[in-house]
Amino acid sequence: MKRLAILGSTGSIGQSALDVVRAPPDKLSVVGLAAGSHADRLREQAAAFGVAITALGSETGTEGLVAVATHPDVDIVICASSGTAALEAVLAAIDAGKTLALANKEVLVMAGALVTAAARARGVAILPVDSEHNAIHQCLHGRRRDEIRRIILTASGGPFRQMPASALADVKLEDALRHPTWRMGRKITIDSATLMNKGLEVIEAHWLFDLPASQIDVVIHPQSIVHSMVELRDGSVMAQLGGPDMKLPIQYACSYPDRWESPVARLDLTAIGRLDFHEPDLNRFPCLRLAYRALEAGPSHAVVLNAANEVAVASYLEEKISFLSIPRVIEETLDAFAPVPVTNLEAVREVDRWTRRYSQNVARGLELKV
Amino acid sequence: MKRLAILGSTGSIGQSALDVVRAPPDKLSVVGLAAGSHADRLREQAAAFGVAITALGSETGTEGLVAVATHPDVDIVICASSGTAALEAVLAAIDAGKTLALANKEVLVMAGALVTAAARARGVAILPVDSEHNAIHQCLHGRRRDEIRRIILTASGGPFRQMPASALADVKLEDALRHPTWRMGRKITIDSATLMNKGLEVIEAHWLFDLPASQIDVVIHPQSIVHSMVELRDGSVMAQLGGPDMKLPIQYACSYPDRWESPVARLDLTAIGRLDFHEPDLNRFPCLRLAYRALEAGPSHAVVLNAANEVAVASYLEEKISFLSIPRVIEETLDAFAPVPVTNLEAVREVDRWTRRYSQNVARGLELKV
Repeated sequence: MKRLAILGSTGSIGQSALDVVRAPPDKLSVVGLAAGSHADRLREQAAAFGVAITALGSETGTEGLVAVATHPDVDIVICASSGTAALEAVLAAIDAGKTLALANKEVLVMAGALVTAAARARGVAILPVDSEHNAIHQCLHGRRRDEIRRIILTASGGPFRQMPASALADVKLEDALRHPTWRMGRKITIDSATLMNKGLEVIEAHWLFDLPASQIDVVIHPQSIVHSMVELRDGSVMAQLGGPDMKLPIQYACSYPDRWESPVARLDLTAIGRLDFHEPDLNRFPCLRLAYRALEAGPSHAVVLNAANEVAVASYLEEKISFLSIPRVIEETLDAFAPVPVTNLEAVREVDRWTRRYSQNVARGLELKV
Repeated sequence: MKRLAILGSTGSIGQSALDVVRAPPDKLSVVGLAAGSHADRLREQAAAFGVAITALGSETGTEGLVAVATHPDVDIVICASSGTAALEAVLAAIDAGKTLALANKEVLVMAGALVTAAARARGVAILPVDSEHNAIHQCLHGRRRDEIRRIILTASGGPFRQMPASALADVKLEDALRHPTWRMGRKITIDSATLMNKGLEVIEAHWLFDLPASQIDVVIHPQSIVHSMVELRDGSVMAQLGGPDMKLPIQYACSYPDRWESPVARLDLTAIGRLDFHEPDLNRFPCLRLAYRALEAGPSHAVVLNAANEVAVASYLEEKISFLSIPRVIEETLDAFAPVPVTNLEAVREVDRWTRRYSQNVARGLELKV
């Protein structure tokens, strides 16, 4: 029996993780739960799974999250808290020798160097839960790093995949929130529509698999069945396929290196019939281009990319700026930023604070006149 | 430097194998060559690669093939001879402890039990060169047998994939010989058009991966880019993709467990754009159904299937019987056959002889009136 702590248990991934625990085979138990603010749901979950160790971020702050993540009874920490709150808890979990199942993008985008160095030093495994990185992890099982020619992250392309550039200016919030294949939170759904989600994943992949930007490609694949691919040095391409159900990568991360039976719906390729692939359009979706730019510029630029994107998306979700202003906010902030070394968490936080101040100003200047 | 013997060096696979040896990286050498009958081409190949050990089947018979396959200087035997001639050489190569790169379907279809038992006893690896089985081998690398839920062999569907049943009766030989994606010999091209090729591969997969018929599925995939797939016990599906170039699986089999750089054209999924998948139609293509029937009936039935198919296809290639008579010849022969134990090569040969006699009679009865 592997014992889990779930950070972000009341969110979409957290609830799927509890579904995995609930389903056969009976190989997982939950010993710790942490959530940001949904007190009632957290209490219900704790009661349903008989969990004694809980923390509500809005009451205990980071301290509670860290306590859950480092509790001696915990084997695996599933980090599904969104945003940057989880960063300290992740570092503490690694320090405590816990296996990490990581569903939070920001942790690696903001502090990939710190987190991966800590994991290496402590001999701790980081297992990606994001379906794309999880697919890459599956494709790379049993292979050496020097066998990799490149990895190919697939992207659904979001709801505006086929929209002409001219129409993107007038995109309505409700349309942006309608993701074609995955049901997710609001922030990540907008990131899917701008392709920034894929950009963040490119940076995440850089840290998880120790590959430069030049070896990380993105291909649009609207059906979201091929979760990602790896091209090996001989030209062979390995792919992992599955339905759009996060329970599969969550269970994989918990069962690794084993695989367990799973009740998830069986993939029927003949019922799907057709898989499409095309190049991403970096002109219509500049956020992806900006993510590559940040990755190539260095770790502190990735912090800027992430924070400026959070600010811009928040403004868009409040309907203060237009869809096309999201990349403008990020680009102007990146333009104004001078790189700094980010050798500790405080340096990351400092860049994050600067970015939020700066990009909020940029966003204010782009606000729509009502 | 790994030292190869190539059985069937003048055929399509044999020539591709020599292309692999010729190309960088310089990690392979050829020390033995055997061919059935193309004396001039064999002599040219031997001169070009400085090979001293050669055998021409039409002169030396099986003995020459065995001598090449078992020569002490040989590390890997690439068995690309078509038909049943290679069977004795393969068993001798295994007995001599050679690694086997197997491109000949009949070897496992006719004597899978004997060959795999010998390989297990001698600790010899059998590496499949057929693109489908090679793909499965790649997908299974580093995984345990009990992790497999099923394997999914892809099939191009052949040139008559979309032809209505009524039109199949009048199929012309020249159309049957026009394969949509792969360029191969005449016999195997007809086998692709009838789907018997896939049926033989189902039986081959049974022996290579130790799986029952119920865990081996076939899906039609006209683009032949996904070479095959494995569904694992948690529902995850692993696939191997590549262009239609046999040099890739040949090199994989030679380099395994390593992978080397390869000059084969890079797969560009966005240029291909679209991959389709649909169920095979066992009514229009009864040969696939007959292969499953033979596999379930036992090893001696597979010998019958293979030999009756050879006879039927030969008649069709001579334009003596119609396209739809191919499965009729096989089915009538299977119907008439009573299973026998095939515990040695002589028993296999006996069933093979009986089948050829019987099915030739059936084919004669179905001959077209001119």
